[in-house]
Amino acid sequence: MSANSFGTLFKLTSFGESHGKAVGGIIEGVLPNTIIDEDFIQSELNRRRPGQSAITTPRDEKDRVEFLSGIFEGKATGTPIAFVIWNKDQRSKDYGNIADVYRPSHADYTYQRKYGIRDYRGGGRSSARETIARVVAGAIAKLMLQQQGITIHAFTSKVGSIQLDKDYTALDLSNTENNIVRCPDSDTADKMINYIDDVRKNKDSVGGIISCVIKNAPVGLGDPVFNKLHATLGQAMLSINAVKGFDYGLGFGATELKGSEHNDEFYMEGDRVRTKTNRSGGIQGGISNGEDIYFNVAFKPIATILMEQNTVNKDGEEIKSTTQGRHDPCVLPRAVPIVEAMAAITIADHWLVNKMYR
Amino acid sequence: MSANSFGTLFKLTSFGESHGKAVGGIIEGVLPNTIIDEDFIQSELNRRRPGQSAITTPRDEKDRVEFLSGIFEGKATGTPIAFVIWNKDQRSKDYGNIADVYRPSHADYTYQRKYGIRDYRGGGRSSARETIARVVAGAIAKLMLQQQGITIHAFTSKVGSIQLDKDYTALDLSNTENNIVRCPDSDTADKMINYIDDVRKNKDSVGGIISCVIKNAPVGLGDPVFNKLHATLGQAMLSINAVKGFDYGLGFGATELKGSEHNDEFYMEGDRVRTKTNRSGGIQGGISNGEDIYFNVAFKPIATILMEQNTVNKDGEEIKSTTQGRHDPCVLPRAVPIVEAMAAITIADHWLVNKMYR
Amino acid sequence: MSANSFGTLFKLTSFGESHGKAVGGIIEGVLPNTIIDEDFIQSELNRRRPGQSAITTPRDEKDRVEFLSGIFEGKATGTPIAFVIWNKDQRSKDYGNIADVYRPSHADYTYQRKYGIRDYRGGGRSSARETIARVVAGAIAKLMLQQQGITIHAFTSKVGSIQLDKDYTALDLSNTENNIVRCPDSDTADKMINYIDDVRKNKDSVGGIISCVIKNAPVGLGDPVFNKLHATLGQAMLSINAVKGFDYGLGFGATELKGSEHNDEFYMEGDRVRTKTNRSGGIQGGISNGEDIYFNVAFKPIATILMEQNTVNKDGEEIKSTTQGRHDPCVLPRAVPIVEAMAAITIADHWLVNKMYR
Amino acid sequence: MSANSFGTLFKLTSFGESHGKAVGGIIEGVLPNTIIDEDFIQSELNRRRPGQSAITTPRDEKDRVEFLSGIFEGKATGTPIAFVIWNKDQRSKDYGNIADVYRPSHADYTYQRKYGIRDYRGGGRSSARETIARVVAGAIAKLMLQQQGITIHAFTSKVGSIQLDKDYTALDLSNTENNIVRCPDSDTADKMINYIDDVRKNKDSVGGIISCVIKNAPVGLGDPVFNKLHATLGQAMLSINAVKGFDYGLGFGATELKGSEHNDEFYMEGDRVRTKTNRSGGIQGGISNGEDIYFNVAFKPIATILMEQNTVNKDGEEIKSTTQGRHDPCVLPRAVPIVEAMAAITIADHWLVNKMYR
Repeated sequence: MSANSFGTLFKLTSFGESHGKAVGGIIEGVLPNTIIDEDFIQSELNRRRPGQSAITTPRDEKDRVEFLSGIFEGKATGTPIAFVIWNKDQRSKDYGNIADVYRPSHADYTYQRKYGIRDYRGGGRSSARETIARVVAGAIAKLMLQQQGITIHAFTSKVGSIQLDKDYTALDLSNTENNIVRCPDSDTADKMINYIDDVRKNKDSVGGIISCVIKNAPVGLGDPVFNKLHATLGQAMLSINAVKGFDYGLGFGATELKGSEHNDEFYMEGDRVRTKTNRSGGIQGGISNGEDIYFNVAFKPIATILMEQNTVNKDGEEIKSTTQGRHDPCVLPRAVPIVEAMAAITIADHWLVNKMYR
Repeated sequence: MSANSFGTLFKLTSFGESHGKAVGGIIEGVLPNTIIDEDFIQSELNRRRPGQSAITTPRDEKDRVEFLSGIFEGKATGTPIAFVIWNKDQRSKDYGNIADVYRPSHADYTYQRKYGIRDYRGGGRSSARETIARVVAGAIAKLMLQQQGITIHAFTSKVGSIQLDKDYTALDLSNTENNIVRCPDSDTADKMINYIDDVRKNKDSVGGIISCVIKNAPVGLGDPVFNKLHATLGQAMLSINAVKGFDYGLGFGATELKGSEHNDEFYMEGDRVRTKTNRSGGIQGGISNGEDIYFNVAFKPIATILMEQNTVNKDGEEIKSTTQGRHDPCVLPRAVPIVEAMAAITIADHWLVNKMYR
Repeated sequence: MSANSFGTLFKLTSFGESHGKAVGGIIEGVLPNTIIDEDFIQSELNRRRPGQSAITTPRDEKDRVEFLSGIFEGKATGTPIAFVIWNKDQRSKDYGNIADVYRPSHADYTYQRKYGIRDYRGGGRSSARETIARVVAGAIAKLMLQQQGITIHAFTSKVGSIQLDKDYTALDLSNTENNIVRCPDSDTADKMINYIDDVRKNKDSVGGIISCVIKNAPVGLGDPVFNKLHATLGQAMLSINAVKGFDYGLGFGATELKGSEHNDEFYMEGDRVRTKTNRSGGIQGGISNGEDIYFNVAFKPIATILMEQNTVNKDGEEIKSTTQGRHDPCVLPRAVPIVEAMAAITIADHWLVNKMYR
Repeated sequence: MSANSFGTLFKLTSFGESHGKAVGGIIEGVLPNTIIDEDFIQSELNRRRPGQSAITTPRDEKDRVEFLSGIFEGKATGTPIAFVIWNKDQRSKDYGNIADVYRPSHADYTYQRKYGIRDYRGGGRSSARETIARVVAGAIAKLMLQQQGITIHAFTSKVGSIQLDKDYTALDLSNTENNIVRCPDSDTADKMINYIDDVRKNKDSVGGIISCVIKNAPVGLGDPVFNKLHATLGQAMLSINAVKGFDYGLGFGATELKGSEHNDEFYMEGDRVRTKTNRSGGIQGGISNGEDIYFNVAFKPIATILMEQNTVNKDGEEIKSTTQGRHDPCVLPRAVPIVEAMAAITIADHWLVNKMYR
């Protein structure tokens, strides 16, 4: 339960608050001689960056990663890779009464009570800016995994009540980046975008679901008891800001089925054992079975809305408060690369641990 | 990622296979002088035990816990508490072709590929018998937590498509143990029981949802980043056999709401900060806020059904196979104490870690 | 800092007090298909057992190991191996004032203050009986390592001021088990035995040094920073009861040398890089270099002596106290297999972790 | 066995190579509201800095720490404190044959074999520059501990064969900083300084011993089995560059004593239990007993000497090599603050963990 680390052998330890000097982290377990493609890493950061489209916050954070260690002549050396992304413009300004107000459904109150102190200029460690570190580590995990042929693809499958009505197997996932909401079906994407735009105009926010598929994971990742592959994937996803739920395979839908409707029968494809169906989501008994791994991640509407709300302040007075500034009405488009990053970190970690059996 | 341990300061390390000599574990972090009420612990085991009702498997495992260390004159000494539950009747018998068959949606195949060897007499570590260790550790965690006034209450809220249509706040949870399906609403319970009985007669199995409420958790449990309280609860639940999904607060339902519909406004109740609504499920920014913590756990129908199914064997031959023996058609009634146990372990661990701030 | 576990991938978690029902542990990371030679494991326990010779305590504890999980048909399955060694004769008896007395240089006082409670019938977790678990895990680690050709050999090199005056390279280490003090030089062994016998007659105890050599460790074990191979070996050895110091290579002797006298020059032996001398003790920069790894472990005279001593009791009264019973005047002969066991666990763990680079 | 982290609740994760952009780390577990006295932290770094005296390397690294997170308005917020110290002058230059040569008793060879790649411009993670991160974390640990009245004081007690002949209790430790070798006895210090100067003129290096005393540690720090207080202190010290041994209390000297000579009898000082003597070094059964904790750390002469030596290169050719540049002939003066830092981190971690019992 190291609060700021994730993983055992492939491990990210992150640091940084939204209004401090920088966010960043230390990545351990990057295999020596892995080629560190900084352009790819930056492109992943760009997918997460605010201001990239009309439906994301117009704040322009830039977010360029600077590596401090663990890389020599473009390759990982096997030593920890530290990196920073400098925060712009964290000059002291007048935070006025923000410092004293507990914003509804934010972490202001819980923070204050847990630590007895907080950096009231922003969300502290609860700020989604911390996920920058995850995207950098995830990009490096992807570079390691792609040498094994393992790929990870997330996309927006639901916004509000607008749901993608096709299974991922019926979609061309390469279309995901073709629209600003990152839904691979362009018609559904258009509806989502229009809906988000409406929500934004109403100074409100909206939730949704991101789905993710991992292809070509080898058989054998995951452990039978507490570190079932889906249990660690679940922790990874639930640790992302605004996430309220996780399921894999048929997930909550499986609860209504009978065993005879849910079981995946085995068959032989040449000399390879496969399943005819994949309701299990590529994991049986907590261990990958070689089929596609797929799962869903539920996001709530983010807490920051630009309307007046009732709340209390540090002095225990009931007040009305209105948040100012620029905020995403819907975090899903920018959360797609974060989901992929956490999946990549989780898979890379299991893959390294599994090498003990080779 | 210690595959057989859960927790940091309050920690369970479990061992044992379904057909070995025993299952058991080592519990660390039990506060010295905690009264170890063995009757209570045994009563929790009895709730998990097979054969307790018409809708659970009639195998009679008994499952009496024997403590080996860490207790002196009825109290915890602060040293690790080891315990065993002896397996009955693990004499060698003829496992015939079971040894060679990969049962559909079981872990037989993934195990064999991961380890290159397995104890083919049962599910190995994937057997739900492992959860005995969790119930023992959970019972001791409950004993620690009840001294803080913290209580944990799980119940069956859905079986197949029969869903409890009341919120937990509208239910008398003390009714949960009054019926064999562990649903606190007796009418719904009757429907669930009838349905499970039908499924059993058809040699099939069925899934469902267990809901859980944690009351009186103090403000401040959980960490802002990777160990958000709900992220570790999520891992805990997803590590239970047959679990396919987890959500908390409004969960997947939150995805369709707007921020203005989902946010919990603060108000003062005397000198205590409270929220008017509790859509957040008692956790904000990964940290408990003092309201009720509640969540749902989705169970698939268990893989063991008594019908003929297509599968393959170790030699890569496609065969037909029919499982014999006695099995639960629905695991939910017996999983209720397991959900509570994992919740108790998770909360006890966060509570101990949080003492560093006191 | 899991207080009862040692190792990351190859990991022992131990339990048990001297006067509880049993001691034992859970071993994780034993590679599947490792042959579990129970006779060998028992023979290692026999080397540790009290009552084996005239200079060890005549208590006859027997100490037969019983395995509970993780082994199938004589082979490790890759799942955790749990084991117990039942304590004999832990019936309640009259502990009289022992319960109240803080024995000098024992852990009675520190235990009572740390936990606020203790099992006053014995040393609790501070009892050397806990090391039984280490010997079992160490024996299994040896079985894994011997398949890699790695061997571990410890021996008594000093008792009181009687010091073995030969380097390990000038000794036939196979003589170690030929005498009851486990010193491979028979003349020195005789002197040590006589000296221990004198000490015993005087109701006193005496300390000494155990030396240990690890042969055929591959190049590359250990990490450059906090888990330098010698740092983890050091923790392993310092965690053994009565150990006061650890050094490796020339150790404390190196402090008086100049760099020109201490450095190990490289040369080629065929196509293998070797060092002409091995003052470094087989480790450079925290990583094994393929030469013999050797180190020393300093043991104090054990605290239990059969003379009257001044001390205080739980009520804060200054009293005189005399310990009764049977105790080793010198722990070194029985500690030799414990040193080997902890070395084996440490090396097995580093070896498994290092497989991530293969 | 996280290779780059030390500690459980108070934890340092370090990064950086000697010739990379920066060294630094992330510190977790700093209690919120701890005053972060940057001047004090910088003064600790200055004690470690090269170029501070005639007997240390005249390289002038400056080494100013820059904090990136976890501090707000001069106080710790409870979130991870990240920091960097920028390396000066890591411009690419001609490393010529250094890149190919395995320097005797350096980690060049073991690194190359472990990772298959290394940053040949310096010692990589084996460089003592990594210890900068430890000094920063140790300084913050000291700030936390001093609020508990706990103080840590290290000093040079031996250089070559020149040994301080007084016990620490007979010394005025406040004199330690009064001379450049950091020995609190000025006469002995003069001899040491002259000796080091001779060694330096001869292009050689020399080892020695640093002793350390921890005062006012509360009773109860440390755990009875693998995390005995002295076992974790031992790992901490053995993880420092060039350390070959560790002992505490009477240490290796205790091996020659009898129990009657070594035991510490208890007595009452008012209502406080104390020991008449302190041969145990303040730790009994792995747990602090409230007396002074003291220990010794053995340093070898550093491997870098400015003489020609025989060695081999990457192509397996036997060659002669001479190191150029500026190096410490004796690391002990600069290692004094590093020993203190690792002691402070270890104690702070045990102290936090121990709060679970409060």
